Amino acid sequence: MSNAAIDFYLDFVSPYAYLASLRIDEMAARHDRDVAWRPIMLGAVFKVVGTGPIVNYPLKGPYAERDLARSARQLGFEICLPEGFPHATLAAARGFYWLTDADPGKAKPFARAFFATYFQEGRNATPAEDTAKVAASVGVDEAAFLDAVQDAAIKDRLKAETSAAMDRGVFGAPFMIVDGEPFWGSDRLDQVERWIETGGW
Amino acid sequence: MSNAAIDFYLDFVSPYAYLASLRIDEMAARHDRDVAWRPIMLGAVFKVVGTGPIVNYPLKGPYAERDLARSARQLGFEICLPEGFPHATLAAARGFYWLTDADPGKAKPFARAFFATYFQEGRNATPAEDTAKVAASVGVDEAAFLDAVQDAAIKDRLKAETSAAMDRGVFGAPFMIVDGEPFWGSDRLDQVERWIETGGW
Repeated sequence: MSNAAIDFYLDFVSPYAYLASLRIDEMAARHDRDVAWRPIMLGAVFKVVGTGPIVNYPLKGPYAERDLARSARQLGFEICLPEGFPHATLAAARGFYWLTDADPGKAKPFARAFFATYFQEGRNATPAEDTAKVAASVGVDEAAFLDAVQDAAIKDRLKAETSAAMDRGVFGAPFMIVDGEPFWGSDRLDQVERWIETGGW
Repeated sequence: MSNAAIDFYLDFVSPYAYLASLRIDEMAARHDRDVAWRPIMLGAVFKVVGTGPIVNYPLKGPYAERDLARSARQLGFEICLPEGFPHATLAAARGFYWLTDADPGKAKPFARAFFATYFQEGRNATPAEDTAKVAASVGVDEAAFLDAVQDAAIKDRLKAETSAAMDRGVFGAPFMIVDGEPFWGSDRLDQVERWIETGGW
């Protein structure tokens, strides 16, 4: 039986990825699995696929806001889209990859703190200076974080991760791959869990 | 407590609507609810929303075929997209509305038979002559069916239903509205049931 990590593709701007982030590690832990969080640039992905942020579509946008609120409440959370949503979350994504090398124990705490700031407080913390303050709140050096998110190697890392994700078929977020099987959407987490339990069907 | 019917918006070309159709009436019956099936012209809706058939998108299309097969197997079914999928299903949609007036007891049996032909047998029964044969298989007069689907009033009925659906926020299929609350996707049926059980949350 495999114990491979679940690949969890996300963009920090994706509210459905936020919903998945609230459950995925706990679910994985029940089955002795790790979760590899992999931020990607959803904007670049959308260009290839020919789609866009769900909230920008007529009819679909208003529904999505209602569905998000309802789905969050079902999990016992509130969700709040910041003024001007959606924003580019490059600093958070780059900072996350930097931390996975520089101080891996702080990567997920930072990611969770960013998600909470953006979707619970509903505060736009996407400017690099604000993202760095979120990092500082989990013990990361603020100045080092700000340097890192401007580092060419880190920028390239995020581009490479995004490109590699598309090579694996990723076209949105959240997107999970477990034992080679792809799942799209926070509403597929139950299928992911059943897939792990049963080895597929 | 409300006993209002669940409005079930569908296009006979939608494989996810097919998956929902396999469960929705049984679920509703558990809660003393009827289901009002409401075919719409998804192509016209997509033009307004700016989207298209999911299988036509890069990356998203191949995933959708895999997700459909997996989601069907989870329910104990196989799903088979006919050669040349997706097709226009105007005859089926028009014929359904004609039956709801002319012989209401045959409307859902026809709808189920059409879905089964298209997605279980994987046979393109969308030309009017083939659709009429599917209707005949549930006891509908084939010639009368063929006349009906060319009737101007029936054509207008389908246009009006599609337009009214969009006025209610419908942008895809399957789309369910129960007690004023909208739900999109076959994967929202569990939420629909819980919404009925709890009166909302």
